[in-house]
Amino acid sequence: MSVKKLKRVVIIGGGFAGIELAKSLCKKVFEVYLVDKNNYHTFQPLLYQVATSALEAEAIAYPIRKLFKGKKNLYFRLGEVTHVDTTKNIVLLGKESLEYDYLVVATGAVTNFFGNEGLSLSAMSMKSAIEALDLRSLVLQSFERALANNNPRKRQGLMNFVIAGAGPTGVELAGALGELKQKVLPKDYPELDINQMNIYLVQSGDRVLPMLSPKSSQRAQKYLEQLGVTVVLNTRVLDYHGDYVQTNTDEDIIAKTLIWTAGVKGNPIAHMNGSTTVTKGNRISVDVYNRVIGLGNVFAIGDVASMQLEDFPSGHPMVAPVAMQQGVHLARNLKNLETNQLTTPFKYKDKGAMATVGKNKAVVEIGKMKLGGVLAWFIWMAVHLMSLVGFRNKLVTFFNWTKNYFNSDRGMRLILSKGDIIEERRERVRRWRKSLIKSE
Amino acid sequence: MSVKKLKRVVIIGGGFAGIELAKSLCKKVFEVYLVDKNNYHTFQPLLYQVATSALEAEAIAYPIRKLFKGKKNLYFRLGEVTHVDTTKNIVLLGKESLEYDYLVVATGAVTNFFGNEGLSLSAMSMKSAIEALDLRSLVLQSFERALANNNPRKRQGLMNFVIAGAGPTGVELAGALGELKQKVLPKDYPELDINQMNIYLVQSGDRVLPMLSPKSSQRAQKYLEQLGVTVVLNTRVLDYHGDYVQTNTDEDIIAKTLIWTAGVKGNPIAHMNGSTTVTKGNRISVDVYNRVIGLGNVFAIGDVASMQLEDFPSGHPMVAPVAMQQGVHLARNLKNLETNQLTTPFKYKDKGAMATVGKNKAVVEIGKMKLGGVLAWFIWMAVHLMSLVGFRNKLVTFFNWTKNYFNSDRGMRLILSKGDIIEERRERVRRWRKSLIKSE
Repeated sequence: MSVKKLKRVVIIGGGFAGIELAKSLCKKVFEVYLVDKNNYHTFQPLLYQVATSALEAEAIAYPIRKLFKGKKNLYFRLGEVTHVDTTKNIVLLGKESLEYDYLVVATGAVTNFFGNEGLSLSAMSMKSAIEALDLRSLVLQSFERALANNNPRKRQGLMNFVIAGAGPTGVELAGALGELKQKVLPKDYPELDINQMNIYLVQSGDRVLPMLSPKSSQRAQKYLEQLGVTVVLNTRVLDYHGDYVQTNTDEDIIAKTLIWTAGVKGNPIAHMNGSTTVTKGNRISVDVYNRVIGLGNVFAIGDVASMQLEDFPSGHPMVAPVAMQQGVHLARNLKNLETNQLTTPFKYKDKGAMATVGKNKAVVEIGKMKLGGVLAWFIWMAVHLMSLVGFRNKLVTFFNWTKNYFNSDRGMRLILSKGDIIEERRERVRRWRKSLIKSE
Repeated sequence: MSVKKLKRVVIIGGGFAGIELAKSLCKKVFEVYLVDKNNYHTFQPLLYQVATSALEAEAIAYPIRKLFKGKKNLYFRLGEVTHVDTTKNIVLLGKESLEYDYLVVATGAVTNFFGNEGLSLSAMSMKSAIEALDLRSLVLQSFERALANNNPRKRQGLMNFVIAGAGPTGVELAGALGELKQKVLPKDYPELDINQMNIYLVQSGDRVLPMLSPKSSQRAQKYLEQLGVTVVLNTRVLDYHGDYVQTNTDEDIIAKTLIWTAGVKGNPIAHMNGSTTVTKGNRISVDVYNRVIGLGNVFAIGDVASMQLEDFPSGHPMVAPVAMQQGVHLARNLKNLETNQLTTPFKYKDKGAMATVGKNKAVVEIGKMKLGGVLAWFIWMAVHLMSLVGFRNKLVTFFNWTKNYFNSDRGMRLILSKGDIIEERRERVRRWRKSLIKSE
């Protein structure tokens, strides 16, 4: 019996797409290397709960090596890809190089500030566990500071939170801040008038959750308002340097915190030679097999990939189900390629969409079914619990949610970030302005 | 009925001493302000489990405001004390000032590098949740790096861990690293030869855990060696700049990580006018009532206080039970002072000492009873679980321990610190050396 050398698949990115692909690839045919800049997979849909002190980061992040434990022909590398040479089939990770037979780019998406540098330096984003922990620290630091500040304008700025973008992330974060305002902060800060806290959810369009039906949008907005969130529609955030949020209406909002959830863009690899086409939304153009247009053995899946179909002229929505389905599907196609079987085009099975606003308050759409309230909330919880990686994470999250449900508590309100986040951002903007003046 | 103005007690420090005092003080007599630079209480005895990926920081830290929730006349202030004026009875916290009738300094202890600046810049210490998270990141980063390094000497440096000081912290940390080596890392890094990992526990004296009996020391050393720890006795660490640990014997140890648990010192307030006497170990001299020598209404409790008695010529041991007992005792004495009753001198009730090395491996001494093995381990666990603040923390810790017991797993192995800890420390040392050359 001859031992056949396995073909090597290198996957860049350990998000939903990369992890599903790595798990699904047949290890009798392939040797798999997964590369990520973090040593853990992040369950991004629950980052807002880390930011609002409901969960610890450890409950929603999962060590990739633990996921791969005991699995044959499945390897992990921690690092940032510095270069990809698609003619030599090599990925560079700093000093280390990895050859590949197949390369899969699953690098996901990053926050899109649409080129506004002041905004990118002074607004908070929430795409990683570390960013979520920073946001948690910022929120708590703001109240501690407000307590010590006797200047009413400054105190108001510390107690105003503006969220730009009313997609699921913005809505869920606004709702969670609303629950903090109603149920936790008044007991934590008896010396502060928590009624002065304002949560503004600013949306350029005319409704929240525009990907859902108008009925669900209306429901979600009602829930938000019940939790004390001010929904500001038809308004666009234009600029922010750390003190007040400039909008395209006459009303600017004084706020020391702006959280930017108003845009994401693909995160393709910067130094990748070859004829990769980057299309709208900074995503890599792929064919119906997720193959990068113009390259034979390079694929892209998940948020970073844009498969332009009749139903999806600008690519699939940048959501977890697409990423997971593409990962599973590509695993099958790669095996088919190696075993000389037919490959099949990717077809997205839309399983619906949902968002939660608060306790007993969620909206769920599955096919033509539109649910709200308690039932939707339980469905949302069940789906998210089941999707969490690992038994421990499921159990700890379930326990925390149960406890938060009955106590209306948020036990994780620890400032674990080093330094003062507000000061740090102010300093960044200061340096940037200086550099602008110099370069004039 | 006339409303009597309450006397105000300001407590600086939310460690064991400060928290016990705040909880125990009679709120009908006193208005209490507790000040801390963190917004949470840290259960320091379990920091090593955060550092070795067994627990999340959120399991052993507890928000102080949550602790004070709903309590009357009990307030918290986040901040660093910048100045204390003992003639005007004022504590300054940056811009905010707090007047007091009684001041209690409970600022605990910090790592003591005995004036060696190179050491303080390049060694890791483990006195806070953030330091423990950094240490966790460093350990994990070292293995990821070792994997990518083909230079055998450099790889060895990354896989050598030196712990200076074999008190409870050093012993527990060394044991936990030994368990990682035996049970977790081989599965996580099948490509690395984990046998190359060395854990050195360096102790200046002739036995580990010198505060216990020789019998317990012997037992603990046996346990450590069973877990693959190299115990190096009668050896003192002299210096370290990030590459190799210099000792007073001929054997230096190549290591990218030195963890310094070889000394603590009191952490008195730097800018406190008045005639405070700082004594041996940088601790504040107090009388038998924990009153700061020379000051009428200022007290010090816990690690920072040194009450020199016949039994304890250089003050009580710097351990949690002393701190907690002094907190409770001072609460009673302050009430007695206010109600014109007799105050009583503090008497330490020694409840024994213990240290755990690993699963089923601990030593416990209570009075004349000396226990080891499984029974000691269960006692250690029970005592620590009961001492943890909050039901959630107890339950999460219990659950994690149960899971780790049966799976020999450490689920928290996430690199949550920003940046590369090794590089950061190297850079610190580089800058320090530069400044030395400049100043010559």
